[in-house]
Amino acid sequence: MAGNSIGREFVFTSFGESHGKQVGAIVDGCPAGLPFSDADVQTDLDRRIPLQKPELVSGRVEKDVVQIQSGVFNGFTTGAPICITVGNKKARSGDYDAIRDLPRPAHADFTVRVKYGGFNDYRGGGRFSGRVTVSTIMAGTVAKKLLNQFGVDVLAYTKSVGKVKMKKQFSSKEILTNRYASAVRCPDLVCAEKMENAISEARMAGESIGGTIECIVLNIPAGVGEPLFDSLDGDLAKAIFTVPAVKGVEFGVGFRLAEMWGSEANDAFQMQGGNVTTVTNASGGILGGISTGMPIIVRVAIKPTPSIAKEQQTVSLSKLENATIKVSGRHDPCVVPKAVPAVEAAVALTLADHMIIAGFIPRVLKRS
Amino acid sequence: MAGNSIGREFVFTSFGESHGKQVGAIVDGCPAGLPFSDADVQTDLDRRIPLQKPELVSGRVEKDVVQIQSGVFNGFTTGAPICITVGNKKARSGDYDAIRDLPRPAHADFTVRVKYGGFNDYRGGGRFSGRVTVSTIMAGTVAKKLLNQFGVDVLAYTKSVGKVKMKKQFSSKEILTNRYASAVRCPDLVCAEKMENAISEARMAGESIGGTIECIVLNIPAGVGEPLFDSLDGDLAKAIFTVPAVKGVEFGVGFRLAEMWGSEANDAFQMQGGNVTTVTNASGGILGGISTGMPIIVRVAIKPTPSIAKEQQTVSLSKLENATIKVSGRHDPCVVPKAVPAVEAAVALTLADHMIIAGFIPRVLKRS
Amino acid sequence: MAGNSIGREFVFTSFGESHGKQVGAIVDGCPAGLPFSDADVQTDLDRRIPLQKPELVSGRVEKDVVQIQSGVFNGFTTGAPICITVGNKKARSGDYDAIRDLPRPAHADFTVRVKYGGFNDYRGGGRFSGRVTVSTIMAGTVAKKLLNQFGVDVLAYTKSVGKVKMKKQFSSKEILTNRYASAVRCPDLVCAEKMENAISEARMAGESIGGTIECIVLNIPAGVGEPLFDSLDGDLAKAIFTVPAVKGVEFGVGFRLAEMWGSEANDAFQMQGGNVTTVTNASGGILGGISTGMPIIVRVAIKPTPSIAKEQQTVSLSKLENATIKVSGRHDPCVVPKAVPAVEAAVALTLADHMIIAGFIPRVLKRS
Amino acid sequence: MAGNSIGREFVFTSFGESHGKQVGAIVDGCPAGLPFSDADVQTDLDRRIPLQKPELVSGRVEKDVVQIQSGVFNGFTTGAPICITVGNKKARSGDYDAIRDLPRPAHADFTVRVKYGGFNDYRGGGRFSGRVTVSTIMAGTVAKKLLNQFGVDVLAYTKSVGKVKMKKQFSSKEILTNRYASAVRCPDLVCAEKMENAISEARMAGESIGGTIECIVLNIPAGVGEPLFDSLDGDLAKAIFTVPAVKGVEFGVGFRLAEMWGSEANDAFQMQGGNVTTVTNASGGILGGISTGMPIIVRVAIKPTPSIAKEQQTVSLSKLENATIKVSGRHDPCVVPKAVPAVEAAVALTLADHMIIAGFIPRVLKRS
Repeated sequence: MAGNSIGREFVFTSFGESHGKQVGAIVDGCPAGLPFSDADVQTDLDRRIPLQKPELVSGRVEKDVVQIQSGVFNGFTTGAPICITVGNKKARSGDYDAIRDLPRPAHADFTVRVKYGGFNDYRGGGRFSGRVTVSTIMAGTVAKKLLNQFGVDVLAYTKSVGKVKMKKQFSSKEILTNRYASAVRCPDLVCAEKMENAISEARMAGESIGGTIECIVLNIPAGVGEPLFDSLDGDLAKAIFTVPAVKGVEFGVGFRLAEMWGSEANDAFQMQGGNVTTVTNASGGILGGISTGMPIIVRVAIKPTPSIAKEQQTVSLSKLENATIKVSGRHDPCVVPKAVPAVEAAVALTLADHMIIAGFIPRVLKRS
Repeated sequence: MAGNSIGREFVFTSFGESHGKQVGAIVDGCPAGLPFSDADVQTDLDRRIPLQKPELVSGRVEKDVVQIQSGVFNGFTTGAPICITVGNKKARSGDYDAIRDLPRPAHADFTVRVKYGGFNDYRGGGRFSGRVTVSTIMAGTVAKKLLNQFGVDVLAYTKSVGKVKMKKQFSSKEILTNRYASAVRCPDLVCAEKMENAISEARMAGESIGGTIECIVLNIPAGVGEPLFDSLDGDLAKAIFTVPAVKGVEFGVGFRLAEMWGSEANDAFQMQGGNVTTVTNASGGILGGISTGMPIIVRVAIKPTPSIAKEQQTVSLSKLENATIKVSGRHDPCVVPKAVPAVEAAVALTLADHMIIAGFIPRVLKRS
Repeated sequence: MAGNSIGREFVFTSFGESHGKQVGAIVDGCPAGLPFSDADVQTDLDRRIPLQKPELVSGRVEKDVVQIQSGVFNGFTTGAPICITVGNKKARSGDYDAIRDLPRPAHADFTVRVKYGGFNDYRGGGRFSGRVTVSTIMAGTVAKKLLNQFGVDVLAYTKSVGKVKMKKQFSSKEILTNRYASAVRCPDLVCAEKMENAISEARMAGESIGGTIECIVLNIPAGVGEPLFDSLDGDLAKAIFTVPAVKGVEFGVGFRLAEMWGSEANDAFQMQGGNVTTVTNASGGILGGISTGMPIIVRVAIKPTPSIAKEQQTVSLSKLENATIKVSGRHDPCVVPKAVPAVEAAVALTLADHMIIAGFIPRVLKRS
Repeated sequence: MAGNSIGREFVFTSFGESHGKQVGAIVDGCPAGLPFSDADVQTDLDRRIPLQKPELVSGRVEKDVVQIQSGVFNGFTTGAPICITVGNKKARSGDYDAIRDLPRPAHADFTVRVKYGGFNDYRGGGRFSGRVTVSTIMAGTVAKKLLNQFGVDVLAYTKSVGKVKMKKQFSSKEILTNRYASAVRCPDLVCAEKMENAISEARMAGESIGGTIECIVLNIPAGVGEPLFDSLDGDLAKAIFTVPAVKGVEFGVGFRLAEMWGSEANDAFQMQGGNVTTVTNASGGILGGISTGMPIIVRVAIKPTPSIAKEQQTVSLSKLENATIKVSGRHDPCVVPKAVPAVEAAVALTLADHMIIAGFIPRVLKRS
């Protein structure tokens, strides 16, 4: 596979650019017989933009209209590849001429130009725009709907913005109810307000700010994951790193395990309601690359938005000399809220694939 | 691929178990014409065991004798699959009967048993033993030798053990000289001694201890990485998560980016000796999933060794009731030193694959 | 990959059904910098229907309007996935209700229904319609345009219809000029007329007729192919078998080699203009799964169109009893002419992929 | 995957050369719980050499001793990769120096040298020797044993040698009993004698001779195959073309379909014992790339052995001038008998993979 497909048996192929005609997703390998419609995708996609506080995101608040182009018939998936698209609004391409020559720090402008010899569609970041996460989110809807049929829930939310960290634990019900009530997608609504303030502060200073996202997966059976190399944690990490701005991934207690002693870190096994569970869950639901049956817990570091209002040092690629750039236009001061559904989609896509591979999801859901 | 192969054009397939006949590696896709011999692998493999302080590792200090079985002829790789093996010493299998029924906390005993229906070779952890990293290290030698032909160096070392952290920066030359001089594989020899003490302290308390490993890659050209999904960071993370005990991976400044503002995090571009470089390297040499040409920096969280001398709570899988286990035998009180060459190998394998894909390494190195 | 993608580094993903909204193709891995436009695809697609003799094909002669949705910018490929679509005309779905219950002999109706549990889009054969070759042909245009940059030409043509066989050899120039001048896509225009007659004869008898297609590839360098398993002949065969109605594939002299002695079959090597060539080409340009530098010659058996006007025996899947079916509507009495561009596309896609893998085509064609 | 692995979920990786230390196979993705031992493989491997008539094969009649190196424990597969090896006997490498410079017509000497820049192990054809089919046969044993658990039988046999063709139909029982009783592996023992004579005649004339192999698969359920691109016929063809000397593959009536009318070619459906079957089987058990439930029938063209006693024209690669070569040593005058188990293995490997993908074979056969 040449880099724009991911998955082994449930395969997501992404296409489209920020300012091209369409952004689209192909899902191949979805079992036949899953109830599915445009509306399923539309709901997920609408959550991308926190409408409560439009000032938290960039100017481009466009309502995307989802179209399923193939693979669904009479309200059910057919087993054929599912193509889902949204059109792009006309955007003024002229706005982006500057960045051809002056790569924006911490953006992919420079690396992409080197890689594709200058032929890349640079408008709005092209293929490397946050806009492309729409593709991931659309494919993720298929995955989540499929997982739901088997009782599995995937829930991502904002865990921190800058130094503001959510510390309380919430039930999955509370997370479900609260996270999209908050513009920053944090289920702790008190904490969410502080996060909004931290974002506003950064924005008003002509700055941007980073944060972390946590994603939990509930009701995943033990035995999912294909080590050595298609380990569940490895494949989750790979998928999550495709979300722009991700710079770190950790499971369970994560990096804090590096400072612990064994007795502190080891999750003791116990019988609970006839099942083997663990007393604690420092391992985040994965041992040896295979799910334990406990909730999967993964945390993701998101860097501050590269685009800031301040002037920055860069180089002119045509003149090969130092230069400065001031990124024009409005930009998200914090990409964390928009990245929440993308991380959730990446996790769901990986789990749908792995549950099919491990035999927990059959190739045909039922017979009509 | 069914889970025991990794890579797209430079493909490593792993086989073997802790107490089976052999542990082996197949490397497929290595260009023809690379000088290669048993001795290259032997050197790397010998570094697995820190002979300076045998008390830092488990009792099983065996000299592995490497054999290249295929793919090398007259001192050069031929373009055919390279099979490299080491035999396993006879081990008393009886020692491991207990863990069939009583899964050791934080080990893969339970998840593996669920996944493979009880048919897995459980002796010494079988396929999930640290012993299997021998396979990764052997394949990694091929990758490192190939990368060296193109000036690329991959250097892993211990960054922290428990709360003891190496803070000084070292040149690549110092890292090369010092890291294997230290039993803990830390190039800061003062810090290394403190790390050894931290390990000894844990060992004497019947405990184990975690740590972090850092790996830097020097002289990688800009333009390596195949986003969206075969991004360089995603594929590195996936490969690194195959090393046992890894629970987190971060690039550049990593999780600390989540607390930063944009101006702090963004690496400004500059001209330097005719090349585009960045003033800082918070991004760890990767933007948009593609190498920038700056050193790649990745850090890895290693959990404490699951095996500890203390009694732990578990369950009896035959009786489905709570039980306790005391893991017998000697065990590494800290797996960080042994994981250093495995992480280095995982990184090298990923980079060799990506440099071939991106066209930086040709399919035939030269013509004879 | 879940079955609707093919290729290793130049990957074609197909989507769409006969009576769905769109039929589309994604090409991932095409190097950046290839001049490309809608018009390139339109030309190839228009050749699908032999307009000279509309009576040779089915009633549905629709002009497909090609749209490139992504991956092309300012007239050049960008390195991002290229999505190309055509819309489907509204068709009366009701026509196809019968075949849900009564699978048409030699069609995929029965096997597809079993496989997808009855959820497949059965209208017009759905995903298994000849209509889906439009997707292959569109992707094939990208491949052919890319190959052309490196001097490689792929030429398919009708070799036989029923017992009418083209025996004369033609130059590539003659093939290029003549094949689309003939409604049956046979460069021997005298023979072509006999083929048309054979098709008419079958049609008037309420029958259909089979044939063979030959495809030659010119100017392919020696050294293309990745044995053992990604051999050039194996991958060509796999790609060609995806064209509906193909039941056999042979290279060079093919099955006739089975009756020969070695001295008759072996192609002697010779020096010719400073190059190593072979005196004959019984091997069809491939030895050991690798191209020899001689023209690649592959021949393909196409079965008679399954749909015939005569009543046929089948079963009722709802009643599980014997039944008869009379396939209504007009159908191609011979699919060979329409299969010619599909076979050509399948061959071109395989060669583009293999030339990239083997290093004959770089990842960026030039730098802008 | 870099070319020496085949399969999607049941993956076979081949390694080893004719005159290297070992020839080996890795099977990854075999479900846990399959009874398996060295003896299973030994039986299949012993069938490679027709001991009845050693003069029909080349001088090198070596008893290969099979060793399972990993993936089997206590008599059952474990779910881990299964590595199986045989050692190579010491052979005089000097014998092969000539062919470095003078490529043998119809062998891979020339193409391999071009591809691998002269670094290939040329001794005895190296990686391109018929010897390497040992690897395929060993992996095929795993596949056949697995298929047997689900009632599926794979039976290959010699269908023709030169112009001598087996025409009678035999039951699967007769094929099983008779084929290995004949040195040419033809179940029609009368015909087999004529085949032997044809081979002897060629041999005595300093020649070699080709033939065809037929393989039938019994009891395969309907619904196996993953179109469009991982179609059952396409994947079978790809696997079969990896067997050296194969130049054509056809299913069912194959190329003869190209001369037929529809009513002759179409297999009518019928109810039979409560199941849907077809009255005839011209399609060879595959429609739309998916199994119909009828026996799969595939036929394979094998070219005459390239090595013949007669002097042949070639070129000197060092001098770039015409030359002649007389291939020394003894060689199989007909490779068809030795290719029979290799074709059978290739078919079995493909079917095991596809039955797993389609969900007919679970990931764990039973629980211990």
